[in-house]
Amino acid sequence: MSATSSDLQGSVEANETSTLIASDKVEGTEVYNRAGDHLGTIHNLMIDKTSGQVAYAVLSFGGFLGIGSTYHPLPWRALTYDRISGGYVIDIDKNRLEGAPSYSADQDQGHWMDRDYGRRIDEFYGY
Amino acid sequence: MSATSSDLQGSVEANETSTLIASDKVEGTEVYNRAGDHLGTIHNLMIDKTSGQVAYAVLSFGGFLGIGSTYHPLPWRALTYDRISGGYVIDIDKNRLEGAPSYSADQDQGHWMDRDYGRRIDEFYGY
Repeated sequence: MSATSSDLQGSVEANETSTLIASDKVEGTEVYNRAGDHLGTIHNLMIDKTSGQVAYAVLSFGGFLGIGSTYHPLPWRALTYDRISGGYVIDIDKNRLEGAPSYSADQDQGHWMDRDYGRRIDEFYGY
Repeated sequence: MSATSSDLQGSVEANETSTLIASDKVEGTEVYNRAGDHLGTIHNLMIDKTSGQVAYAVLSFGGFLGIGSTYHPLPWRALTYDRISGGYVIDIDKNRLEGAPSYSADQDQGHWMDRDYGRRIDEFYGY
């Protein structure tokens, strides 16, 4: 078989290359742990304004169809992309994740203003 | 007047702090040049998969309501956030932007696979 135009498009998507990925492709990507448990999806990314470094990928965890779920900021480097599942993998079990730093969508977001909050997240995940 | 709950929520939004900003807040943000010309909106961010560094903010430029617009990847550091307008500012005039590296939404995205493409963008914007 020869390569067709659609083959080429399939391998060179607009929103991902071998080294780069689009923010709107990361948002909504599934997250699993190493045991294969489905943990949730990436809600959004928190980016350092000055450096442009992604600080956290915020996991929407638990709930049903987004209702009742909590947001768990995960250090970007704690996530590994798994080509087979097309999702991210993090080395943590579900019970431990329940005790991770988190917040609900409707709660005051003042914790982000606390400089210690980032440190607590990093420490929780072993960084 | 005393601060109300909604005052506090307004000052501490879920998607932005003094140092961090959410990817889904950046997407759709207006972009202007220093002359105040409206250039377009941020379509998405291209992120280095390994380092988590935002490489480019992709500007949707020209067209009308997104139709006929072209995508112009801008180096993140070329953008300055302007609190007054609530948008990003880049030091480039419209005519020059028309000649910047760009692509259309429906065209093959293979240029991203070319390692020289990023270098060409950086050089165009003087980095």
